[in-house]
Amino acid sequence: MDLNADLGEGFGAWTLGDDDALLEVVTSANVACGFHAGDPRTMRRVCERAVEHGVAIGAQVSYRDLPGFGRRFIDVDPDELTQDVVAQLGALSAFARVAGDRVRYLKPHGALYNAVVHHEEQAAAVVAAVVDVDASLPVLGLPGSAFLRLARDAGLTGVDEAFADRGYTPAATLVPRREPGAVLHDADEIAARCVAMATGRPVRDVDGGELRLAPASICVHGDTPGAVGIARRVRAELTAAGVELAAFA
Amino acid sequence: MDLNADLGEGFGAWTLGDDDALLEVVTSANVACGFHAGDPRTMRRVCERAVEHGVAIGAQVSYRDLPGFGRRFIDVDPDELTQDVVAQLGALSAFARVAGDRVRYLKPHGALYNAVVHHEEQAAAVVAAVVDVDASLPVLGLPGSAFLRLARDAGLTGVDEAFADRGYTPAATLVPRREPGAVLHDADEIAARCVAMATGRPVRDVDGGELRLAPASICVHGDTPGAVGIARRVRAELTAAGVELAAFA
Amino acid sequence: MDLNADLGEGFGAWTLGDDDALLEVVTSANVACGFHAGDPRTMRRVCERAVEHGVAIGAQVSYRDLPGFGRRFIDVDPDELTQDVVAQLGALSAFARVAGDRVRYLKPHGALYNAVVHHEEQAAAVVAAVVDVDASLPVLGLPGSAFLRLARDAGLTGVDEAFADRGYTPAATLVPRREPGAVLHDADEIAARCVAMATGRPVRDVDGGELRLAPASICVHGDTPGAVGIARRVRAELTAAGVELAAFA
Amino acid sequence: MDLNADLGEGFGAWTLGDDDALLEVVTSANVACGFHAGDPRTMRRVCERAVEHGVAIGAQVSYRDLPGFGRRFIDVDPDELTQDVVAQLGALSAFARVAGDRVRYLKPHGALYNAVVHHEEQAAAVVAAVVDVDASLPVLGLPGSAFLRLARDAGLTGVDEAFADRGYTPAATLVPRREPGAVLHDADEIAARCVAMATGRPVRDVDGGELRLAPASICVHGDTPGAVGIARRVRAELTAAGVELAAFA
Repeated sequence: MDLNADLGEGFGAWTLGDDDALLEVVTSANVACGFHAGDPRTMRRVCERAVEHGVAIGAQVSYRDLPGFGRRFIDVDPDELTQDVVAQLGALSAFARVAGDRVRYLKPHGALYNAVVHHEEQAAAVVAAVVDVDASLPVLGLPGSAFLRLARDAGLTGVDEAFADRGYTPAATLVPRREPGAVLHDADEIAARCVAMATGRPVRDVDGGELRLAPASICVHGDTPGAVGIARRVRAELTAAGVELAAFA
Repeated sequence: MDLNADLGEGFGAWTLGDDDALLEVVTSANVACGFHAGDPRTMRRVCERAVEHGVAIGAQVSYRDLPGFGRRFIDVDPDELTQDVVAQLGALSAFARVAGDRVRYLKPHGALYNAVVHHEEQAAAVVAAVVDVDASLPVLGLPGSAFLRLARDAGLTGVDEAFADRGYTPAATLVPRREPGAVLHDADEIAARCVAMATGRPVRDVDGGELRLAPASICVHGDTPGAVGIARRVRAELTAAGVELAAFA
Repeated sequence: MDLNADLGEGFGAWTLGDDDALLEVVTSANVACGFHAGDPRTMRRVCERAVEHGVAIGAQVSYRDLPGFGRRFIDVDPDELTQDVVAQLGALSAFARVAGDRVRYLKPHGALYNAVVHHEEQAAAVVAAVVDVDASLPVLGLPGSAFLRLARDAGLTGVDEAFADRGYTPAATLVPRREPGAVLHDADEIAARCVAMATGRPVRDVDGGELRLAPASICVHGDTPGAVGIARRVRAELTAAGVELAAFA
Repeated sequence: MDLNADLGEGFGAWTLGDDDALLEVVTSANVACGFHAGDPRTMRRVCERAVEHGVAIGAQVSYRDLPGFGRRFIDVDPDELTQDVVAQLGALSAFARVAGDRVRYLKPHGALYNAVVHHEEQAAAVVAAVVDVDASLPVLGLPGSAFLRLARDAGLTGVDEAFADRGYTPAATLVPRREPGAVLHDADEIAARCVAMATGRPVRDVDGGELRLAPASICVHGDTPGAVGIARRVRAELTAAGVELAAFA
């Protein structure tokens, strides 16, 4: 099983999250590429440390939106979005190569991640960027999303991910954040669900039913001290359950 | 002889210069990489058209300064400057490769170009970026500059350039812009000087003496309609004089 | 009758439109406030020249989006939008006061203009900013928009504008840009329609019927040489028809 | 005695320092105005809380440099610097007025603060902005700086400040940061020095001699938890020594 998390999300004088702690936990690092966070020095340092830790470097691509941290939907022209993604892939690739590795996958960030679940044009625009740059690059996304469907249609490898701390509906979609059960906070419960996902056992959906998720990667967070603690717990429980942790890419 | 000019210096809704006209004139395009100008869509279009015209793509790297168009010296930390250059090289490389070619050289822009003539730390920082990314990449600069000296010391290919429309001192340095004779405006004179430079004959320095410049590339401008006309004239006169025009890289 | 146009939409080294020409035509200048265009030096110069020409200074407020020129909808949090508008009003106010006048009205720009026609939360957010800063400030918008309705509900003066070069449906809404008849190009026709609007006579809607628009301000454009010519023609015809031109604010 | 500190230095998703803690300590808040830090929502919140705490709002103006946090010298054209400062003053003024007060002073930030100690043109440019906007606005700076001299020459009120945690030479200039004794870390020593400064008694210079500083304001920091603790200690000791704390403006 792969564990992925967002890294390198500082900018200039500002930091966010604990990159060093997360690199001890995850097998894949979604590295910010400068459009929502991540200045060049941060990109370099995170790439170098990821290589040292044997963590796979992924491009966490975003709308061009530093003030909004990539969390606001932007109705950007699809061709412009394609080129924005190409630029991000190119910048991060340079740092990955300088660090001795290469970018091994792409994952959309924030509002773009949510948009490409349903927004066909934007999903196609991100897919087009990957096809243009390197069609062998896997993309990480939400199972059932337009993004993964279009990616696979275009011959890309689409990788299903699940969220360690999110509630799911019986239809295997995420419980919207404004509804009860959307976000889980109990480390025991979160770790147990991850072990279930990784060993082919069902988890409880928000209505109490059984739901079988079969992700190739599980997303954990590290933007708060508590989140890092939960991520560590997830890793420990997976390891204790005999699940081998390794990057999917 | 190589003719180089700055291209792709628009941003979003704003345009600057006439890229299409210049691509008919030059053999090397210094393409803006997003830090002083050049959004991703512009980078893509310029790279594609450069390839169509057989023009070599160079990375025109700059301080991170959109509001100042890279024309103000910034006392940036050398390590940060290195990573800023790596990021620019990476972004442009992605577009060059998508267009079917690759970045073939690097040239600093504006205030950075001027700074690295004398500023050892910043010159070394730009050189370090090229060494990190691709030590086979030639760099274009001012003859006698710290930048070209350090580049050659580091094993890079340093390429001397001359300016078609600038006056030179007897010591072969540029006449400062605030002094008389700094900038030439007469198309006949400019074209004749370029032919002299390209055929091994001397030009007049600002004091009237003979000065032998032996550039591997001549820089022309295209940011005004008049400048494009002069650039066309330079190309026509060089061709008429039997000078073969070809990218140095 | 008031004539308004967008001014000050350059940024740094980049220019857009012909501010000096437009200041001879319009009675109200929608001055960019730095979020989609308009650096501080441009704001200062436009404010000073507007005062010299007796043209009223209005704040043309936008999403924070220099790369997109404010032309892309951004799903910004309403409170953040309110503060973004307050910041823009504040910056432009400083320049208006330095120039010897003050900001006399507000008009949303681009994608924000279009959004607040229907988007109740964003419309309310812009209204809230005006109420916070200066509830005596009139706001310019599309007749029938949520923005003007909420502004008037909040006690602000809402000012109806019409577009010189846009086609209208029988319901007095704008013909969408992708449909035939959306944009008019004939200077004679545009000027004649403006005279009709200004003298209480009907214009033709897109279906050929009679439509009576009663705007307090007519918006002209100046972002191309042709547009400036049309704007001049509109002013000349209005004057010839005995329509007094004066800022509404 | 006045205590000032930098506040509102977050941006978007990023925070820096503990504004709420500092507002319990200082009498004057140097609020970031968006050019090195400080998005509009942060400006609004800090202004509102400053008013609630009876803390004076000052404009902490900077070079336009979010990636560098205003810590790099930029060789900006003086006229552009003037307009950049006007824009910052205007934006913050809007938020101060919405909060029920007004901007009460100006202090340059970071590299600009250091530059205007000696850089006559940039110092004059900042002074010109204050003269343009509101010549009754005091400016805070380093005693002996070109900035305070030019400000006073222009009829502005120049306010001398001292730094709680910096070492001084016998000539009452700051010990450069790269030299020993540049920065003090011991809370006891720092607080004792502040009490001495506030009660007309001498402090030790870096060579052990007696130095009489007579600041009208003392600058404390709050960008780390330790710094907040020291700032609290300074306030407590000043109060215990009978020094009345009040904003100078």
